[in-house]
Amino acid sequence: MSNSSRCAACKSLRRKCPQDCVLAPYFPSNNPQRFSWVHKIFGASNITKMLQQLPVELRGEAADCMAMEAYLRVENPVYGSVGIIYQYQQQIIEVQNEIIKINGEIAVYNALLQHQQLQQHQDSFFSTDNDFNL
Amino acid sequence: MSNSSRCAACKSLRRKCPQDCVLAPYFPSNNPQRFSWVHKIFGASNITKMLQQLPVELRGEAADCMAMEAYLRVENPVYGSVGIIYQYQQQIIEVQNEIIKINGEIAVYNALLQHQQLQQHQDSFFSTDNDFNL
Repeated sequence: MSNSSRCAACKSLRRKCPQDCVLAPYFPSNNPQRFSWVHKIFGASNITKMLQQLPVELRGEAADCMAMEAYLRVENPVYGSVGIIYQYQQQIIEVQNEIIKINGEIAVYNALLQHQQLQQHQDSFFSTDNDFNL
Repeated sequence: MSNSSRCAACKSLRRKCPQDCVLAPYFPSNNPQRFSWVHKIFGASNITKMLQQLPVELRGEAADCMAMEAYLRVENPVYGSVGIIYQYQQQIIEVQNEIIKINGEIAVYNALLQHQQLQQHQDSFFSTDNDFNL
């Protein structure tokens, strides 16, 4: 890659962008913000090392996840992505409690239906009884 | 802190652990693994910087979250903590679909109950009618 079309990483680090730049495919020059997040949180050398340790076909997904993780930590410097995990855990507990509540309602409906069916049988029984008495 | 009781960070970085070490309260010497995760993923200097930028009362929680985040990335070098977020998002969708399904069941129960109540009213109506006819 020529110096005039350096990737966002090489531009930010003020260096030449080599043809085989490890970061270039995942940090294009038109999205400098994405690199600034991972640079701030993980550091350029860590990002390069982590991507290099992965097979090429997994690097795109890994770079996306690192960018999201870094963004979440920039946005929430105390909890970062773990804050979202806590929120989702809470949401799952709430939704599971809702299911328990709804299942309770179904049990009530079941009992009401059975009660009504029983009453209908009793009614028809007495009604037949009356017929006999006529 | 004396050199003989250095924190996990200072021990790993082979340096003296000063009295006012920023990392010592959150990376005690008895848990070197915890520091090795954050060191590998964020780097010691980034961790120190990120903690220093926070009020002291929030640093413990932040260090816990960073340790968890780093652990998740060591365990899953492609998705890291974002993998857990994806899993939870999927789980929430599944549980919400379950609620939609159960609400559908409740609607069926409601319809059945109404049908039975209607039938009971009709039965009692005809039964009264018969009485009149007697």
